[in-house]
Amino acid sequence: MIKAGIFGATGYAGYELVKILQRHEGVKLEFVTSHSFAGQWLDDLYPQAPHLLLIEGEAAPLDQVDAVFLALPHAAAAATAVAALSAGVRVIDLSADFRLKDLETYEAWYDVTHPAPELLATAVYGLTEFVRDQLPDAQLVANPGCYPTSVLLALQPVLAAGLPIAGPIIADSKSGVSGAGRVPKQHIHFVEVANNFSPYKIGRMHRHLPEMEEQIAAFSQNADAPPLIFSPHLLPVPRGILSTIYVPLSGQPNADDLHDLYAQAYADEPFVHVLPAGQLASLAHVTHTNRCAIAVTLAGSTLILTSAIDNLIKGAAGQAVQNMNVMFGFEEARGLS
Amino acid sequence: MIKAGIFGATGYAGYELVKILQRHEGVKLEFVTSHSFAGQWLDDLYPQAPHLLLIEGEAAPLDQVDAVFLALPHAAAAATAVAALSAGVRVIDLSADFRLKDLETYEAWYDVTHPAPELLATAVYGLTEFVRDQLPDAQLVANPGCYPTSVLLALQPVLAAGLPIAGPIIADSKSGVSGAGRVPKQHIHFVEVANNFSPYKIGRMHRHLPEMEEQIAAFSQNADAPPLIFSPHLLPVPRGILSTIYVPLSGQPNADDLHDLYAQAYADEPFVHVLPAGQLASLAHVTHTNRCAIAVTLAGSTLILTSAIDNLIKGAAGQAVQNMNVMFGFEEARGLS
Amino acid sequence: MIKAGIFGATGYAGYELVKILQRHEGVKLEFVTSHSFAGQWLDDLYPQAPHLLLIEGEAAPLDQVDAVFLALPHAAAAATAVAALSAGVRVIDLSADFRLKDLETYEAWYDVTHPAPELLATAVYGLTEFVRDQLPDAQLVANPGCYPTSVLLALQPVLAAGLPIAGPIIADSKSGVSGAGRVPKQHIHFVEVANNFSPYKIGRMHRHLPEMEEQIAAFSQNADAPPLIFSPHLLPVPRGILSTIYVPLSGQPNADDLHDLYAQAYADEPFVHVLPAGQLASLAHVTHTNRCAIAVTLAGSTLILTSAIDNLIKGAAGQAVQNMNVMFGFEEARGLS
Amino acid sequence: MIKAGIFGATGYAGYELVKILQRHEGVKLEFVTSHSFAGQWLDDLYPQAPHLLLIEGEAAPLDQVDAVFLALPHAAAAATAVAALSAGVRVIDLSADFRLKDLETYEAWYDVTHPAPELLATAVYGLTEFVRDQLPDAQLVANPGCYPTSVLLALQPVLAAGLPIAGPIIADSKSGVSGAGRVPKQHIHFVEVANNFSPYKIGRMHRHLPEMEEQIAAFSQNADAPPLIFSPHLLPVPRGILSTIYVPLSGQPNADDLHDLYAQAYADEPFVHVLPAGQLASLAHVTHTNRCAIAVTLAGSTLILTSAIDNLIKGAAGQAVQNMNVMFGFEEARGLS
Repeated sequence: MIKAGIFGATGYAGYELVKILQRHEGVKLEFVTSHSFAGQWLDDLYPQAPHLLLIEGEAAPLDQVDAVFLALPHAAAAATAVAALSAGVRVIDLSADFRLKDLETYEAWYDVTHPAPELLATAVYGLTEFVRDQLPDAQLVANPGCYPTSVLLALQPVLAAGLPIAGPIIADSKSGVSGAGRVPKQHIHFVEVANNFSPYKIGRMHRHLPEMEEQIAAFSQNADAPPLIFSPHLLPVPRGILSTIYVPLSGQPNADDLHDLYAQAYADEPFVHVLPAGQLASLAHVTHTNRCAIAVTLAGSTLILTSAIDNLIKGAAGQAVQNMNVMFGFEEARGLS
Repeated sequence: MIKAGIFGATGYAGYELVKILQRHEGVKLEFVTSHSFAGQWLDDLYPQAPHLLLIEGEAAPLDQVDAVFLALPHAAAAATAVAALSAGVRVIDLSADFRLKDLETYEAWYDVTHPAPELLATAVYGLTEFVRDQLPDAQLVANPGCYPTSVLLALQPVLAAGLPIAGPIIADSKSGVSGAGRVPKQHIHFVEVANNFSPYKIGRMHRHLPEMEEQIAAFSQNADAPPLIFSPHLLPVPRGILSTIYVPLSGQPNADDLHDLYAQAYADEPFVHVLPAGQLASLAHVTHTNRCAIAVTLAGSTLILTSAIDNLIKGAAGQAVQNMNVMFGFEEARGLS
Repeated sequence: MIKAGIFGATGYAGYELVKILQRHEGVKLEFVTSHSFAGQWLDDLYPQAPHLLLIEGEAAPLDQVDAVFLALPHAAAAATAVAALSAGVRVIDLSADFRLKDLETYEAWYDVTHPAPELLATAVYGLTEFVRDQLPDAQLVANPGCYPTSVLLALQPVLAAGLPIAGPIIADSKSGVSGAGRVPKQHIHFVEVANNFSPYKIGRMHRHLPEMEEQIAAFSQNADAPPLIFSPHLLPVPRGILSTIYVPLSGQPNADDLHDLYAQAYADEPFVHVLPAGQLASLAHVTHTNRCAIAVTLAGSTLILTSAIDNLIKGAAGQAVQNMNVMFGFEEARGLS
Repeated sequence: MIKAGIFGATGYAGYELVKILQRHEGVKLEFVTSHSFAGQWLDDLYPQAPHLLLIEGEAAPLDQVDAVFLALPHAAAAATAVAALSAGVRVIDLSADFRLKDLETYEAWYDVTHPAPELLATAVYGLTEFVRDQLPDAQLVANPGCYPTSVLLALQPVLAAGLPIAGPIIADSKSGVSGAGRVPKQHIHFVEVANNFSPYKIGRMHRHLPEMEEQIAAFSQNADAPPLIFSPHLLPVPRGILSTIYVPLSGQPNADDLHDLYAQAYADEPFVHVLPAGQLASLAHVTHTNRCAIAVTLAGSTLILTSAIDNLIKGAAGQAVQNMNVMFGFEEARGLS
């Protein structure tokens, strides 16, 4: 049994962490923090939540926990990470602060001076499936972004296989509204979202783009990794991401071979499901689960991957707990199925 | 051709006014105001809107218009009404400021000192169907609330007929989210509303209760008007109100007689449709129209009325223009069908 | 460990049973049947379902199970119940076949000759909270309807307390679309339901009315039980029921006393939550849980109860498993929290 | 004043035609047909519809009309077209029967023998903006498919400009549920669609692919037109299509030049709106209108077009009436704004 705390428990990802940890038999949840709602009870905000008192982050008893989850805004997360690590507490950070290895890229895209650049080198980018050997010793895990999780799990096999790619990869992604956070804003007002569907920051404008390109380069193991075009869209659903990804292959790719590549790559994965040939991924495959469903389709020489996750679970809180499980030696699926 | 202006054109009711007046061939829209968005264009907020510059209310050229519509918060509306009337401009006020004849009731429920109590006596409560003779001379019209419109149109025939009522009337009403306004708030965040349904301020707590009780007393023409129990609920749809209204009648009411009473009462009305016996009103009957659909059902001795309107049209902007049409001698349905 | 089978596993309630039993550690699911989909796999229909082969009901190995759940159309359920009971298998029937004690009432409302009227007397009406002492010996449990569950849990305390009631009770209920079943029909087409809200069979026309009136009479323990007016409405959400219930009390009821009555009645219940005074029940309190949330409000002398359940769980599959737990001596909340 | 009839008036596109023609002052609607609902009234199906009797198609008085709209299944439409043309009636066909010039392609994709192949050569593919000179003499107009309308209006300028294209064009399209028709089916049941989002027939599998490729070849004016990859998805909204289209350009395209190309191409169009640079198209720009909103974005050398229409209006009934207006010499926007 380990002890854990959650910083930023009232956002959608933070609350999802509460729900998962409550049913995880190896973890005792010691505290939950909130800056905006400190002094209130979590079930005042979420009627199904447990009756937990929200405290200020500064008041969190770091000396009483083994791990903390940071569901905080960027920059705030890094500052808290420093404090936690200093207290000997292992950190799983759901913000963007430690996802990018390149400091300049981070500061350019997030328009802030990084509070702890010295930690970038040690942070593990926590796409669990590919860093299982690093997690047991990791002190700081950067939990991947929601869009990157859906895109990178789909892209890794074809990139790692080294198949030649003929041009930019296109990820046309569609996300439910919880991805925009819980703070009320005009564009996520019910009346604005219902009956609507809208692209935003398409092309090369969204902050998740450099995060994905860093990993694509790493998967590709060469300097000539293909560029990414990333087009997010806002779906009128509360949760879920579906990415439709186009990979222009060179030569004469074979559909069966490509399906086999994926089926074998993920054959033993508890949370990545490669669908049978002929099927396509949808939100219905994954909402309220920690799964990623991936379907493999070939059109001419273009590989089309459809990849679906629940943005709050596999795209945030679920993957964070999956990482924690590996870090602390629990069964990887504990609390997640 | 008359000239008109809209104060508060960026809220949902205000924008609906813009749309209706744009297609009304007897009205030239001279100005649109907004406190929060002055200096911006209306089509920056609503992509289908005409390209109109939003100006501050203080800058509105009252000397150039014949009528103004006030889609402003209460108290602000009354202050603007005073200025407009002083300038000789006729006022159709969509706020609550002039709906209640009783000053104390207003100040108790709205928790504000009324800015212009002297106008209460002259304001016409604009449920068009029942005040057509007063509108041509009216300088100030208090446009009814959305819930009251759905409830009062349903109740008037049975109350005016003087049938004895055995106890409180119950109005169980359900409204789409646009009724809560355009300003972002937590409870109207898409994620909070989708898949949810929730009552609020039920019983005798909502501000529309005294408005309805004043009119019920007027319809009843006696001191023994039944009390009202009013239960609003928030529906996960953008627009529309359905009220299910229970009137406990004394004696042995007859279903056919009741249906006849309603059919005759509204036989010549362009916007009130009494449905054939056996049918029930739904939002699908009325959204995007100025109609009120009313169905008459009897269960034992309880009369059940289902009454549906579009809260932004018959419940706000449409009825306001309907009132304007009668005030200025236009055909009543002009711009509304 | 007991063994169980599900007849009719592909409807929404049947599939919910599969999900609950899969995580119930005391039950082994032996078979799942479907008439329309026999020979197919459950996960062909529901992408998150376990990989279970659907068999014809006639082929179900009754000799290998201890209990069966019937999620079948009425009349078909009764015929299967007879076969199961003959084989010594205990039955939890989710259809209407054994809910009404009065044969004539059943045959009049369901327009069918009852296939097994001799079983009506022995069937236990399984509103678990009130029949815990009868369940351990019960061979046949009639699981309550979804609307009745939401209404009866709310009404029982005030009726059992014997407070005088001044007129008909009104239950204005709103249900998500899964209550209409999985078979495609025009009125549950997405385009018909989205943005709409509609009453149906209001007053005294819905089949759940006699079921509720039988229980109201039983709770009231006298011949003068108040009549019920029941108004169901179709909500544009997949799941959940909210009932707003009006009980006209005689005399001068006290709000605190009424709240105390409810708080005490359900103080020890794992699944019935009486909300603090001032709060109201909503779907958000209960969806995806086996809970019933009840709020107590007083308006004049009218008691207003808001009562929310998930129609597929507490209103169907969850309550069925709750009954099974008591029947077989499991902890009552097993598999349900 | 001309006279017109609608074959297949009860589907979503057919009913939209009724609504548009009812407000078109130059057209008298003579008849509406329905095979499934003949003998019923249109307002029995659609509560806001006019009170029109539905007749069998065979009973339609072709001798009394100048034009007919065919909103029928494929093959049935062609047979009706033959009868109408023989009677001297001009035909606007909303089915796929006359969209493809190549008979073999039609028969391969639609798996039917074409009932009237001799008419293929004379049919005008009615993307109004590009065939205005042919419409006044056209006897038979093939109204474009909904997806093709959104994609082709977006692609025409870049293709007609002859800019070199480096690989396949990708159209990632998302459609509201009305595109799947009004007949109830499992995958468009409210419970299946709500909270879901799903791709279907992606790559080179959807029947609209050959229709688009024929037009792309025509726009390109050469044999080397790029292939198309087309990925439709089902959106949980009633209406609207948004296509996100990726065109890989050769060389070093310039964003301003591309925007200018589009702005000029559509400068005088009443229904095609090229959005200002920096904006993106969304369903909110177009639902309930005959507009197509197109935004032009450049990412590296990939042109990204976002193109939105209302699938039932510009994608079906609205474009059909737009075609009729040009055919009969009415102002093109008559009845459509």
